Amino acid sequence: MPTKERQIRLTMDELPKRWYNILPDLPEPLPPPLDPEEGPSRVENLPNLLIKTCLGQEFSTDSWVDIPEGLQDLYKQAGRPRPLFRAYGLEKALGTPARLYYKSEFYSPTGSHKVNTALAQAYYAREEGYERLATETGAGQWGTALAYAAALTGLKCTVYWVRAVYRWKSARLAFIKLLGADVHASPSMQTECGRRLCSVDPDHPGSLGIAISEGLEDAQNDPKAAYSLGSVLNHVLMHQTIIGLETQKQFEKAGDYPDLMISCLGGGSNFGGFVLPFIGDVLTKGKKTQFIAAQSQAAPNLQGEYKYDFADHAEITPLLKMYTLGHQTSMEPIKGDGLRYHGCSPILSLLRNKGYIDTVAYPQDEKHVFENTLRFIRSEGFLPAPESAYSVCCAVDEALKCKETGEEKVIAFNVSGHGFMDMEGYREVLGIEDASMETAEATA
Amino acid sequence: MPTKERQIRLTMDELPKRWYNILPDLPEPLPPPLDPEEGPSRVENLPNLLIKTCLGQEFSTDSWVDIPEGLQDLYKQAGRPRPLFRAYGLEKALGTPARLYYKSEFYSPTGSHKVNTALAQAYYAREEGYERLATETGAGQWGTALAYAAALTGLKCTVYWVRAVYRWKSARLAFIKLLGADVHASPSMQTECGRRLCSVDPDHPGSLGIAISEGLEDAQNDPKAAYSLGSVLNHVLMHQTIIGLETQKQFEKAGDYPDLMISCLGGGSNFGGFVLPFIGDVLTKGKKTQFIAAQSQAAPNLQGEYKYDFADHAEITPLLKMYTLGHQTSMEPIKGDGLRYHGCSPILSLLRNKGYIDTVAYPQDEKHVFENTLRFIRSEGFLPAPESAYSVCCAVDEALKCKETGEEKVIAFNVSGHGFMDMEGYREVLGIEDASMETAEATA
Repeated sequence: MPTKERQIRLTMDELPKRWYNILPDLPEPLPPPLDPEEGPSRVENLPNLLIKTCLGQEFSTDSWVDIPEGLQDLYKQAGRPRPLFRAYGLEKALGTPARLYYKSEFYSPTGSHKVNTALAQAYYAREEGYERLATETGAGQWGTALAYAAALTGLKCTVYWVRAVYRWKSARLAFIKLLGADVHASPSMQTECGRRLCSVDPDHPGSLGIAISEGLEDAQNDPKAAYSLGSVLNHVLMHQTIIGLETQKQFEKAGDYPDLMISCLGGGSNFGGFVLPFIGDVLTKGKKTQFIAAQSQAAPNLQGEYKYDFADHAEITPLLKMYTLGHQTSMEPIKGDGLRYHGCSPILSLLRNKGYIDTVAYPQDEKHVFENTLRFIRSEGFLPAPESAYSVCCAVDEALKCKETGEEKVIAFNVSGHGFMDMEGYREVLGIEDASMETAEATA
Repeated sequence: MPTKERQIRLTMDELPKRWYNILPDLPEPLPPPLDPEEGPSRVENLPNLLIKTCLGQEFSTDSWVDIPEGLQDLYKQAGRPRPLFRAYGLEKALGTPARLYYKSEFYSPTGSHKVNTALAQAYYAREEGYERLATETGAGQWGTALAYAAALTGLKCTVYWVRAVYRWKSARLAFIKLLGADVHASPSMQTECGRRLCSVDPDHPGSLGIAISEGLEDAQNDPKAAYSLGSVLNHVLMHQTIIGLETQKQFEKAGDYPDLMISCLGGGSNFGGFVLPFIGDVLTKGKKTQFIAAQSQAAPNLQGEYKYDFADHAEITPLLKMYTLGHQTSMEPIKGDGLRYHGCSPILSLLRNKGYIDTVAYPQDEKHVFENTLRFIRSEGFLPAPESAYSVCCAVDEALKCKETGEEKVIAFNVSGHGFMDMEGYREVLGIEDASMETAEATA
């Protein structure tokens, strides 16, 4: 009998002490990063860019990797372990026989799951003597998380932020600055790559690929700086498995097990972190769980081509074998901006290719996404980030299917962040009037 | 030896099952609410306005009041119990020998501790057959909390929101509407009291006192509606003791006990909720803890006069014996808007009068408050609400005193809410430039 508790929580001692590395358990070896036919070797250049420990983890063949004690402390300081909630309110609101559970990454101090790898990368960078971290950010969650991790570990932090987003997320911009980081709208005048684009258009809106190129170039030119990436790479997904490993312990405590797991997917870090330990159970223990990645039709990278492609716009990274829309493809803006990336992590791409991961892509007007999420907000009371709204939306759709079939499916979904700094998105998409400037007469 | 853990957390079973009612333990009987010399009896009218169970609790002589099981479930759904954090990061940043602990009410789904009484009031209102809750809000936290509680319990909710604040908190306004509540800028055309003020100035900025009057008048005229107040009253403070009761259990688990407890104080609900169980220990168990209420010089109500005064602008409430600045006094705007109230809860006023509570009021430019809080943000990583910043500020000041004296004082402070929807305040006070509209050329 599954527990009746609203929350399944872990004690401090139950914080996972190792990450799960799925590489050795994959159904076939992961295609390695490659160099393009022309130009300098990107693969050989990786040690100049990445934190050494992270680069080692990128290719590790160990199934389990210890989380250093000092980093466990940082995870605890960030509020881990986080509760798993049983969504009784939502179940009732939907009238579904499904049992719904959601993981609360929205409790993150910066508002997203990104802190899980930000803290790990900052911790290792400090150990290795780096003084500064350079990175890019699109929606802003990753930049905020790295600024946070740098503050807590005493490092400097430089963030290149896609100008089109930087423009309208003024609250988040203030937060990153509060945390002490340097932030530049990208393309910027700080890098060769940025200057080239700015010379054509000083008001260039930028893209995630361009911002990655700037972060890479910045770190390349400063031996005291390391580059940090917030998604896609193997070690990033491994750091994020803390989410799924906690969730596994919580399902054990709850006396239940998911038939279906759902999360949103941009580059793949929260999705991978949430599901990889459970996919491990499928691969090694004969479990039958189904996995759905919720995406936007603005960037349905899992419906792209499975091939080698660059991870960035300026082709500084090696080629990665992944589902991709093309590394210089432009994508329409959406409120769930963090999902707007051209490629999916190589690990998840391989698993998708082998049939372990299903995908759904919602229309880019986002109406269905936010309307489904509104049902969650009004019954569970938590405010998901616009990206996490895709995860919630898919869970609601699946729960409603169970209502039709009568199936008592156990559905687990990850709410990867909160939406307190992204209220504009809800207001615009749901058509909530901003009446704040009306006088009393006008409303009479 | 106190624990070395970063977080002290409770299991679900350890959620307190009773609130603490300090009334019978007070050093002398609490002066009762009174009627003014003229006009209708406000005291006799209370049953027409307030939820019956709450009115009963207002005058209860039981030291402990059971939290109904259904309400315990709602508390759990809202994420309770909440962790107590040991502030190792801040201690190190300050170089203080003091041991600092903070309670994490910032984990609230709506961003403030107000949900603790909002859920209780909504729960009882539904039990009593009410269909709607009417209330006022100043800073917006209480209105958000009641909208949330109404959504979770299936009630309607009407919020009268001080126009001057309603104007600039557009994110919070969208959130309240997302939660399904009706919101009116106050003074509004919905009530007699509002129409009178609007006829003079349709753009009247409003005040908390006026908004209370509108909420009261609205509930008075609709038998299906109850009025809910978010602070000041005895039952509100009692509901909030869930904070302090959890904190007591956590200190027991931590093997430590506070010498000094600090929180911000507007009407008194988060301060009271946090400290009353510990003041109970002082009154009945001979403990020696000191208590400091952090206020603004814009509304230093604990430095006002201890006398009978109305709780609202339009004199609809009974007279309450409290420290007050006068119920029609105007107060300068501050970012910590939730602290801008003319009077302090009768219970806390009595305790202040008897010497159990100290107070400090910070200059209304708020520079010192936000600068001290910045040290917390960069070392602990959580973003306090502007109101909670006063609590943090005072804790930092006290920890720095210990640095001078070498005293290993145990200091506990409450972070009553998060600041994700109030970033403007930090930006303006700390002079963080909003460079979002600059082009790359301008920053070159």
